[in-house]
Amino acid sequence: MNGSSTALDPQTMTSNDIITLCHELGKRFKERAAKHDREGSFPEDDFADLKEAGLLSIMVPKEYGGFGADFVTYTRALEQLAMGCPSTALTYNMHNIAIGSISEVDLEAIPGRHGREMREFRDWIYKEVVEGQKIFASASSEPGIGAHFSKMTTKYEPVDGGYVINGKKSWVSMAGYADYYVVAARPPVVKSDIPPISFLLVESGNPGYEFKFNWDVLGMRSTSTNPMTLTDCFVPKDAMFLASEGLALFKLAREPHWTIGGYIGVYLGIATAAFNFTVEMLKKKKIPGTTMSKSEDPVIQARVGEMYSRLESARSVVYGAAHLIDTRRGTPEANAAIHNSKYIVSELGPWLTSWAIRLCGTTAIAKAFPLERLYRDSRCGGLMPATSDECLTYMGKSAFGADLSKPAETYW
Amino acid sequence: MNGSSTALDPQTMTSNDIITLCHELGKRFKERAAKHDREGSFPEDDFADLKEAGLLSIMVPKEYGGFGADFVTYTRALEQLAMGCPSTALTYNMHNIAIGSISEVDLEAIPGRHGREMREFRDWIYKEVVEGQKIFASASSEPGIGAHFSKMTTKYEPVDGGYVINGKKSWVSMAGYADYYVVAARPPVVKSDIPPISFLLVESGNPGYEFKFNWDVLGMRSTSTNPMTLTDCFVPKDAMFLASEGLALFKLAREPHWTIGGYIGVYLGIATAAFNFTVEMLKKKKIPGTTMSKSEDPVIQARVGEMYSRLESARSVVYGAAHLIDTRRGTPEANAAIHNSKYIVSELGPWLTSWAIRLCGTTAIAKAFPLERLYRDSRCGGLMPATSDECLTYMGKSAFGADLSKPAETYW
Amino acid sequence: MNGSSTALDPQTMTSNDIITLCHELGKRFKERAAKHDREGSFPEDDFADLKEAGLLSIMVPKEYGGFGADFVTYTRALEQLAMGCPSTALTYNMHNIAIGSISEVDLEAIPGRHGREMREFRDWIYKEVVEGQKIFASASSEPGIGAHFSKMTTKYEPVDGGYVINGKKSWVSMAGYADYYVVAARPPVVKSDIPPISFLLVESGNPGYEFKFNWDVLGMRSTSTNPMTLTDCFVPKDAMFLASEGLALFKLAREPHWTIGGYIGVYLGIATAAFNFTVEMLKKKKIPGTTMSKSEDPVIQARVGEMYSRLESARSVVYGAAHLIDTRRGTPEANAAIHNSKYIVSELGPWLTSWAIRLCGTTAIAKAFPLERLYRDSRCGGLMPATSDECLTYMGKSAFGADLSKPAETYW
Amino acid sequence: MNGSSTALDPQTMTSNDIITLCHELGKRFKERAAKHDREGSFPEDDFADLKEAGLLSIMVPKEYGGFGADFVTYTRALEQLAMGCPSTALTYNMHNIAIGSISEVDLEAIPGRHGREMREFRDWIYKEVVEGQKIFASASSEPGIGAHFSKMTTKYEPVDGGYVINGKKSWVSMAGYADYYVVAARPPVVKSDIPPISFLLVESGNPGYEFKFNWDVLGMRSTSTNPMTLTDCFVPKDAMFLASEGLALFKLAREPHWTIGGYIGVYLGIATAAFNFTVEMLKKKKIPGTTMSKSEDPVIQARVGEMYSRLESARSVVYGAAHLIDTRRGTPEANAAIHNSKYIVSELGPWLTSWAIRLCGTTAIAKAFPLERLYRDSRCGGLMPATSDECLTYMGKSAFGADLSKPAETYW
Repeated sequence: MNGSSTALDPQTMTSNDIITLCHELGKRFKERAAKHDREGSFPEDDFADLKEAGLLSIMVPKEYGGFGADFVTYTRALEQLAMGCPSTALTYNMHNIAIGSISEVDLEAIPGRHGREMREFRDWIYKEVVEGQKIFASASSEPGIGAHFSKMTTKYEPVDGGYVINGKKSWVSMAGYADYYVVAARPPVVKSDIPPISFLLVESGNPGYEFKFNWDVLGMRSTSTNPMTLTDCFVPKDAMFLASEGLALFKLAREPHWTIGGYIGVYLGIATAAFNFTVEMLKKKKIPGTTMSKSEDPVIQARVGEMYSRLESARSVVYGAAHLIDTRRGTPEANAAIHNSKYIVSELGPWLTSWAIRLCGTTAIAKAFPLERLYRDSRCGGLMPATSDECLTYMGKSAFGADLSKPAETYW
Repeated sequence: MNGSSTALDPQTMTSNDIITLCHELGKRFKERAAKHDREGSFPEDDFADLKEAGLLSIMVPKEYGGFGADFVTYTRALEQLAMGCPSTALTYNMHNIAIGSISEVDLEAIPGRHGREMREFRDWIYKEVVEGQKIFASASSEPGIGAHFSKMTTKYEPVDGGYVINGKKSWVSMAGYADYYVVAARPPVVKSDIPPISFLLVESGNPGYEFKFNWDVLGMRSTSTNPMTLTDCFVPKDAMFLASEGLALFKLAREPHWTIGGYIGVYLGIATAAFNFTVEMLKKKKIPGTTMSKSEDPVIQARVGEMYSRLESARSVVYGAAHLIDTRRGTPEANAAIHNSKYIVSELGPWLTSWAIRLCGTTAIAKAFPLERLYRDSRCGGLMPATSDECLTYMGKSAFGADLSKPAETYW
Repeated sequence: MNGSSTALDPQTMTSNDIITLCHELGKRFKERAAKHDREGSFPEDDFADLKEAGLLSIMVPKEYGGFGADFVTYTRALEQLAMGCPSTALTYNMHNIAIGSISEVDLEAIPGRHGREMREFRDWIYKEVVEGQKIFASASSEPGIGAHFSKMTTKYEPVDGGYVINGKKSWVSMAGYADYYVVAARPPVVKSDIPPISFLLVESGNPGYEFKFNWDVLGMRSTSTNPMTLTDCFVPKDAMFLASEGLALFKLAREPHWTIGGYIGVYLGIATAAFNFTVEMLKKKKIPGTTMSKSEDPVIQARVGEMYSRLESARSVVYGAAHLIDTRRGTPEANAAIHNSKYIVSELGPWLTSWAIRLCGTTAIAKAFPLERLYRDSRCGGLMPATSDECLTYMGKSAFGADLSKPAETYW
Repeated sequence: MNGSSTALDPQTMTSNDIITLCHELGKRFKERAAKHDREGSFPEDDFADLKEAGLLSIMVPKEYGGFGADFVTYTRALEQLAMGCPSTALTYNMHNIAIGSISEVDLEAIPGRHGREMREFRDWIYKEVVEGQKIFASASSEPGIGAHFSKMTTKYEPVDGGYVINGKKSWVSMAGYADYYVVAARPPVVKSDIPPISFLLVESGNPGYEFKFNWDVLGMRSTSTNPMTLTDCFVPKDAMFLASEGLALFKLAREPHWTIGGYIGVYLGIATAAFNFTVEMLKKKKIPGTTMSKSEDPVIQARVGEMYSRLESARSVVYGAAHLIDTRRGTPEANAAIHNSKYIVSELGPWLTSWAIRLCGTTAIAKAFPLERLYRDSRCGGLMPATSDECLTYMGKSAFGADLSKPAETYW
């Protein structure tokens, strides 16, 4: 951002201002996306822009110096960023997952020492984000079990002055670029069926962890998503997230929007970008041997109409779910809507980009255009938790009346 | 309705009250739907209930004694009625098409004699509905051209004291049961490409028309949808709808919600009824040779999850479109949303009911259950204007930037 | 058939002759199909034609006076009949299921008394069909368990001179019209996990059974498919099918083509009839307001191309499976192909007929045309054993290498 | 190939021998495919293997020293090669397109000087292939018109001793690696609506052409498919393909199997490879937190069953079409089957590989596995002529009875 950006004041920005800001950033990210994709390099330049705009604190409440975005705003902001660079939007979301959930707890109401410790943690982490411009990454998934928290094997053990963590994490996005890694772990001994998973902050540079940089994949190539090994990794006592042990799984089951909900804006942005590209290319291309635009071809019109229909339907579902998170967070209705959104928008992308390529033709598969990358990036959505098939099962059970706020009933 | 219903006061009913009322009526209609379907008989008993509840004036503004429902309320009301009897909801909608559009014009602002005549017509028609409990039917489609107004051949000619209408109409719902038929017709001489179509009221019993009762079809069997022949059919001068000639086609192109929008509530109701039935039946059915419910079968859960996803997505699209009609009527965005809704919900039905039968099994195809009827009724949605393929073309053109408020660009 | 039909000699008829004969019969059945569908009446007139043509013995080997059709011929013959009347073809197939499997066993190779008894049964049953023109029906499915033989509860018990059968059967097609009912039953005591199911012939008029005529359903309305109650129903010793106890389940698992394979010709015929109707109607219909045929509309061409593609692909799959039954009966490859055919063609019908109605428009849903009936009939295919979802599971397991010739691995 | 390969004698090899040989080669290609894909490098090593096996002459008749493969064998051979490396199989097919069509003409029957010249050309080209191991590439498509021969702008003009060619070609596969480029061109003056397109051979090293190496795309990255500019490119008189001018377009319309048919084996191979990979991966993967294989998961079984069904249906369609080319080449039935195959198998790939990734999960998108490459390669099929939408239109017109052997009726 140039000098004028210093004028941005999170305190006074409206929802539309935030979305417009992200729209502008997205346009900038778009210029760099192909290079990062080809190299598999992390978009440090994009994150520099995000920092300059102060957007690391999009989910920090206004009273703590952040933008205090609601979920609709956040979703639409992610959509704009993803239209530029899906990898950037996706990793940016990982950061916000860690931060966003904090503001949803009414910490003032929690009495005693625990309440005080939680408030201290909150104050500290907000300051790290707002003033320190620190980036938080998430380290939850594990080899062989994915994001199934209930099967987690990484352990933390209390030691003098803190904890020691041991285990292996897969798919840690922003590996090597984050300032903190939020590591999910279980205590050494678990007595119940539902293990009490906790989150612990591991600071960048801690000698107890190691990354293996092997992310070389189909899509979302710039996310630096790599496996992490934690070996006797010591963290101080105040590294315990929100000063609270064992809440992860219950929170996941009851309020899955953070873990799942961020994806919906990202993948909606991918589909929207692919659709817009398609419309523009078809308008420019001629029906072979004529001066007529392909947009005049009745079959093309019908096909594009079908793509429009599915895209706008997905948008309706996604915005509707985001609105429910803002208004009825944690209700069965909101949770079902989140899973529906995640499913709809994840499976929309591969379908829509495949059709886009089919309609645009061979010209459009060149790396000079973004469409082929969107085809690749979009296929990753349904693999992230909750996977497409987990979403379907969730909705099916929900329709049959299961109580999915119980961890034992969910896929975690 | 029993005596208590006399307590209903349209003036004080909220949106939720109206929907609840229709929910109750729908339950009653459900009991009669199979009989009317089998016989192909018009649901006179359902209409008696609608009259008793005063619901013929659902679209009449409160200041004229009606319910003054907005489009969201209207859509959800239709949905409830259709869950009971789709044919009833569909014909009821035909009545409201005629009435609903009137309140959208600000007649007070129209000066001179024409304004006065329009206001007189409005006052008269509202009174016919509210006090006279009169039912209005629509006679627009014609053999070979369907609802393509620009190709219409039925003509009206000014004569002493009124007009004479000649032509043939197909698919006049409520044929033989309505009190008035709103007949679309063109003048004998048309100078422009876009003919100035007008609507004229033909009162029941007018000797100038004749029905051929031959409606014997797959679904929507109780709508009494039959062809009408008008032969030198005289109507008085004040039969000219809204005292205005030639406005039909422009209005259709600019504000297609009345012609199209009513269907969306009806077909959403059908899909919802089919889904609810499926869930209940699968919960009751056992996995063969076990005491476990089919709802425990993981494949069934995934399938039902998929059905739920598509149904709730359609609901999101439909309610969203209805909301746009209420807030941004006539905008390109609202019109595209209406066409998307019409398309989505029309094609959802056959897909969803087909899957419902597949999952529920042979037991469920018995006429003792509503599912087989819903399978039949639902296939009719995509045939009504705008047809599914017209909707797709509309959306495709819209995405390419065509100005669809021009009649020449639309499918009419 | 007129007098010339007496010239038909099964001994000299080629495969093509049989298919042509069925094509001619199909055209005749087509004239009557609507009436039987409306009334739910059994097509006795169609069966009179089948008898006159000698076609009850289509699966009886030539050396026993039958047509000796191979499975490809049989499949294509059913297809032709189903193009005329699906209900007739479906019930005709039930008859052939009973007869067809007999010729596949090399009875001459079976030694001793059992071999002799089997040969006697075969000779007798062939004579009943060829000379006696007797119709055989199948009574296998049961309430709550469908066609899952391994869960069967109907029991037979040896008594003096024969057996006594007790139990309830659902969905006995040709109820009240067959000469014999082939009843599947288990012995009173079963020691293994896989019960030794046997088939017993119950002759029409036996006082030990009773039908409840309640078949009033969506489609396949003329099949007289009704529940049967057997109460101390005595049958003589030689009523034991093929003089052999307990072979049913093993045969089903190893050679599922009889139970499943007959459906593929029937449902292919339905889809073909619907497609042909659609092409003819669209050729005749004009694009509204023009003299151009709808077949000139590029969107229609693309849609019909898609229908053609799926229909011809299904035909390729079905004929291929039938060919495998003729050449490699009982192999895993043949059995997977049968299940694929059953699945493909069962789910093709609802899809194709739904599209056909969408393209043909409101005119086409009149009962004056066959399309609406085909829409209804076609939805029944996926419900019959193996159901569409059973077929998918079968294929999935097969792809993973399961040995599906073991009853314990299948869905029976 | 090691020394033992010298024992290969095309004259005595059966169809199965050829397929087995290609299966072995395919396994070798598979090892190199990832490297070529990443680099976008042409698989020269694969072509060295093909040459060593003598397979450049797969379509040369046995009497001329080739393998004399029929179309079924050829299709299955391509399938095997494509299972290893789709790019290799695709470019290999381009070579065979040029050679294969020659043997279909009965040149002995053509009288006079023209017949003699044609036979001389044939003898020469077969020798170039069999003894010279020369590779032939195709240069037909042009910027803005794709493979629409009737709109072609590249021109050839007779000059002293030969012809001069001027024009631009897009998408010349094997650019820079072929020994000859078969260039399609029109005469300078064309009097009819259907231009008489001819093919001319341009030898590698001719100074009159230039490639721009810019192939950097989604999939099929190793095909070296680049644009060619011909500037006053002189070729001798005997460079006229088959010594015949102007036959191209008629041949294309009447016998489209060479231009289209080769793709079907290639894309079937891609889908098969993706399916096999999926089955193996799912067998190995465990259901999270258990020791059970994912292949035991009922939902996975159903999904894999669906994939199997579509793959085996496509195989049935593809082999069936190839068989029709062998037995009824040029008939409307064969041509429709080719277009159906091309469509089915082109659109199967993106669908199947997308599902494969969805089921296999994040692990499977690593470049260490072939699946992500198959996802990319498979999307290219529908873009090659005839495109998926051209195929649908072709089939739709065919169903309506159009005579597609007339160039004016086709998409060329």
